Amino acid sequence: MDLKFLQNLIVPAQTKIAMIIMDGLGGLPLEPGGKTELETARTPHLDALAAQSALGLTVPVGPGITPGSGPGHLGIFGYDPLQYEIGRGALEALGVDFDLGPNDVAARGNFCTVGGAGLLTDRRAGRIPTEVNEELASLLRTIRIDGVEFFVEPVKEHRFAFVVRGPGLGDALTETDPQKTGVPALPVRALEPDSEKTARLVNQFIAQARQLLADRHPANMILLRGFARYPAIPTYPELFGLRAAAIVLHAMVRGVAKLVGMQALNVEGEGIADEFTTLERNWNDFDFFYLHVKKTDTAGEDGDFARKVRVIEEVDALMPRLTALKPDVVIVSGDHSSPALLKAHSWHPVPTLLYGKYVRADGIAEFGERACARGSLGVLPAKDVMPIALANAQRITKYSA
Amino acid sequence: MDLKFLQNLIVPAQTKIAMIIMDGLGGLPLEPGGKTELETARTPHLDALAAQSALGLTVPVGPGITPGSGPGHLGIFGYDPLQYEIGRGALEALGVDFDLGPNDVAARGNFCTVGGAGLLTDRRAGRIPTEVNEELASLLRTIRIDGVEFFVEPVKEHRFAFVVRGPGLGDALTETDPQKTGVPALPVRALEPDSEKTARLVNQFIAQARQLLADRHPANMILLRGFARYPAIPTYPELFGLRAAAIVLHAMVRGVAKLVGMQALNVEGEGIADEFTTLERNWNDFDFFYLHVKKTDTAGEDGDFARKVRVIEEVDALMPRLTALKPDVVIVSGDHSSPALLKAHSWHPVPTLLYGKYVRADGIAEFGERACARGSLGVLPAKDVMPIALANAQRITKYSA
Repeated sequence: MDLKFLQNLIVPAQTKIAMIIMDGLGGLPLEPGGKTELETARTPHLDALAAQSALGLTVPVGPGITPGSGPGHLGIFGYDPLQYEIGRGALEALGVDFDLGPNDVAARGNFCTVGGAGLLTDRRAGRIPTEVNEELASLLRTIRIDGVEFFVEPVKEHRFAFVVRGPGLGDALTETDPQKTGVPALPVRALEPDSEKTARLVNQFIAQARQLLADRHPANMILLRGFARYPAIPTYPELFGLRAAAIVLHAMVRGVAKLVGMQALNVEGEGIADEFTTLERNWNDFDFFYLHVKKTDTAGEDGDFARKVRVIEEVDALMPRLTALKPDVVIVSGDHSSPALLKAHSWHPVPTLLYGKYVRADGIAEFGERACARGSLGVLPAKDVMPIALANAQRITKYSA
Repeated sequence: MDLKFLQNLIVPAQTKIAMIIMDGLGGLPLEPGGKTELETARTPHLDALAAQSALGLTVPVGPGITPGSGPGHLGIFGYDPLQYEIGRGALEALGVDFDLGPNDVAARGNFCTVGGAGLLTDRRAGRIPTEVNEELASLLRTIRIDGVEFFVEPVKEHRFAFVVRGPGLGDALTETDPQKTGVPALPVRALEPDSEKTARLVNQFIAQARQLLADRHPANMILLRGFARYPAIPTYPELFGLRAAAIVLHAMVRGVAKLVGMQALNVEGEGIADEFTTLERNWNDFDFFYLHVKKTDTAGEDGDFARKVRVIEEVDALMPRLTALKPDVVIVSGDHSSPALLKAHSWHPVPTLLYGKYVRADGIAEFGERACARGSLGVLPAKDVMPIALANAQRITKYSA
């Protein structure tokens, strides 16, 4: 079912949908036969909501596929992550809150070290401190080439986001990182005629960067990879007719939300409770609210089972502030799994709860992986959740007679 | 899996398949935590059959999509409703039992009211009585244009089915209904060269209709929309090698069954029991029987929970007449859900039962939404039911070695 088909069936309504995404929510037991993080957490409010909900397990990208945050979020936002790809360069730019535009080509940059013969000796420049990165980025920003603008935004240690802005740019470009040392950095080559001008401009930039950085050992050169344009994704307002708000503390995820047309709301503070405060304050002004909790994923990636449990419990304790707003439809899910046992993102399907007045509730008063496996949503692609939520919000009309 | 692939694996067999479709079967509880219509109904025979069956929930068209009867039936008949679309005009013609042929282009017609300046004042002509519609339809049938035939078949109140029959017609035509009043009706325009002749003929028909109806206020003009040809759908005999019979009291659904190559059997009487009598009388002459019960949907659309329960109980009481015939495979399902709570078709997955000697039975002795959610068929596209039924009827051979 493609989004165009869905778009043609969308009708206006006064209903409100809230999507609460705990990043990396899905987990694993530490011991065989044990409980996952979510099953371990004491979640009376989520359990009560589950009793009035349909439950299921969502597959973010495809069977066995471990998603990054980009495709993980695109999936739960209702897009096929294999059809709508956000290139790595674009994700890097979104991750530093860069306001990526339709005339931009972005790449991931590294400072690196080259020896006297121009051969790479360290692809990461000894992981220079971020402060050095910031100083060198300022230096690179002095490069001027006619007709285009360049942006160099420090990320962390040796990494930066690189953006070229101007008319007629293309992103069909090869990477300069040879992925090994002892060889020179590669020139950028255009893979399509439309990108030839861009290749020439980027190679000019790299040549000037090499001169500017010559005496800045170990960060005396740069590598660029993952060239990507701003992806053309149909947005929430145009696709679903939703005035959509994003409440997100994490820059890259906020960038993805903005890409799909959500308005990123300002959050005063850094806590999950502050995000719920933002939700309350803006409740009257939007149809759809996406609230993102990052700390579940961080705890999972750190291998900290107990901390992930505590974050889930913190979200649970805040749930009454959402239900007090009387949302018509609530989705609680994750963008992917991040089991503490694996200390990483994983491929495991994600526990998902769909609440609403017209949801056919399963009567399972528990929100957890195995409870969700028994639910009537079954195991479903993450992208199918939004259409079902929209239907329950009475925002999809009948197809044919 | 496309139908061509399946078709190549079909083998002959002596087995018989019966598909019992209760229209709009799926429901919702009236109160949170309550039972649906099907769960409320006392269904000892269906429950006993369920105990020997595999259960599941079928998704007619796609997640969140509320189907009309056309796509709902195509789905449970084994076709992807998004691939095989029956246009609205064609459905309108099928709905009045019109024998739509491959050289026909059909449309939905409205009588409407235009004022002195030719501007629309009422798109529905004040919903004239059906008897007036019938008289005016007779008048329109007098229109003769060289080389083609026109058919005008009254539906109800201001609505009629309109069909042009002749060689070389196309249905890539714009609608004449501007969807608002205060403006003139639009001329038909061809969207492709193949439809230009048809556009010209239909515009001539409309011009003559305007003259004939001039003094018939409020029904002094017509609007046409949803132009559609007879859809090219591979039929049950050619796809599945099935001699298929349809036992259907409702004209449009009977039309869809005929479209897919089922032979519509004559039913003496208007009751569900009469349909079962037809089933018994024709049992020896077909491989596949589709028996359609309309009243579940009507009760659902009327918001009459108790009546829907009674209709389901009536079907249950008739089930022994089916099982006495010793069918090899039985499907009991719906074409979509029509919860009394919503008084309309809905997107909710449909409870589905598959019985057969070689079915891996779930051992769940209950036919209901939540029982089906626990079944081994899982949540599956409706179009997947027919291949599974054919396999259980030993009508699909092994794929490859």
